[in-house]
Amino acid sequence: MKSLKPIDRLIESLAKLPSVGRKSAERMAYSLLENSDEDIQEFSDALLNLKQSIKKCPKCGLLIDSDNCPICDDPNRDKTKILVVSHYKDALAIENSDSYNGLYHILNGEISLNKGITVDSLNISSLEERVNEGVEEVIIATNPTIDGETTALYISKILNGSKANVTRLAYGLPMGGNLDYADQITLQKALEGRHKL
Amino acid sequence: MKSLKPIDRLIESLAKLPSVGRKSAERMAYSLLENSDEDIQEFSDALLNLKQSIKKCPKCGLLIDSDNCPICDDPNRDKTKILVVSHYKDALAIENSDSYNGLYHILNGEISLNKGITVDSLNISSLEERVNEGVEEVIIATNPTIDGETTALYISKILNGSKANVTRLAYGLPMGGNLDYADQITLQKALEGRHKL
Repeated sequence: MKSLKPIDRLIESLAKLPSVGRKSAERMAYSLLENSDEDIQEFSDALLNLKQSIKKCPKCGLLIDSDNCPICDDPNRDKTKILVVSHYKDALAIENSDSYNGLYHILNGEISLNKGITVDSLNISSLEERVNEGVEEVIIATNPTIDGETTALYISKILNGSKANVTRLAYGLPMGGNLDYADQITLQKALEGRHKL
Repeated sequence: MKSLKPIDRLIESLAKLPSVGRKSAERMAYSLLENSDEDIQEFSDALLNLKQSIKKCPKCGLLIDSDNCPICDDPNRDKTKILVVSHYKDALAIENSDSYNGLYHILNGEISLNKGITVDSLNISSLEERVNEGVEEVIIATNPTIDGETTALYISKILNGSKANVTRLAYGLPMGGNLDYADQITLQKALEGRHKL
C-alpha cells in the first residue's frame, strides 16, 4: 500500500512550519482530512489573504494592514526616540507593556554566524538614515543572546558618528523569577547593574 | 497597536491543528509571512487539493486517490479475513509490518464517552454486512485503551450471531521494551497470555 500523493504534498508544506516535524505534519494532514470543506477552504483562503493584505511600514518595518502605520503616523508618539527590535513580535510585546511612547525600527532578524544571516539581509541601512533626522535616542532591544548582542554591538558601532545616544535595555533578574533558578550570567549582569534603593 | 486581522484569521485556522496551541499558531503565522509567495500558494493549493483528490474506499473505508482500492481490489489478498482498525494510519502501520494479507475495515474513530463519539458516527453497520459475505475471521485491532476496548467489545457483541471468528490482537510486552518499565496492566496481560516455549 503506497502513501498517497495529495497527503504527502500537504505534509511537505506542513513540515516547513516552525517546530513541526514529519510525524506532527502527518498527524496534522490526517486531521485536516476529517475537517469540513468549509474549514479547509477558510484555511486556504486565510493563507492567500495573508501575503496580499499584510505590508510593511516603509519607514519602521512594522507589519500593517492599511496604508497608515499606527506608530509612525501617530502625532502623539515621541519622534525623538527609536527602539530597535529584531522582530515584529518584540515590538508588539513592548507595546503591550505600555511603557514606551517612541518609534520603532524592525530589523527582521539578527546577525547570526550559525544561520548565515549577515548585515546585508537585515533592515539596518535605513536605520542610519532615520537616526540622522533629529532622533535623540536609539534604544537597542535585540534579544540578550549571542546573536542579539552581536547585532546590538554592530548597530552601536555604525551609529557612533551620529548625534543620537545609543542605549541598551537593562539586564537583570526577571520579575517574579527565583534567584536560585537564575543562570550565572544573568546573576553577574544583575550584580553589575545594581542600583541604589 | 491593534493585532492584524489577516494574521489573526490565519492563526484561527492554524490553532485548530492537533496539538497546536495559540502561541505555536502565532509563531507559525509569523513564519509563514516570511515565506515566498510560491510556498504560500503551494500550501494553499495542497490544502484544497487534499479533499478533492482523496476518497474513501466504499467497502473498507481506506483512503484512496484513484477509483481502485489497493487492498479490496487486489486479487492476491485473503478475502476471508477482515482486520478492524480505528484509523487509516493504523492500517498503514499493519501494512508496513508485512505480517497481514487480508482485508481491512476502518471505523474512523472509537466509541468514546468522553468525546461523545457514539456507535452511529462510526463505520460499524457496513462491517456487519461485509462479515456476512463469507468472512471467516474478524481481527479487532482497535487501540489497547479504554475507548479501543469498549469499541472492541461492542463489535464482538454485534458479530456474535455471525459465522466469523472474532479475535483480538495479543496484549503483552512490547518487543525491545524493558520489563521494569512496563506498567502493571501490561504485565498482568503478559502473564495471562503466556505461552509454551
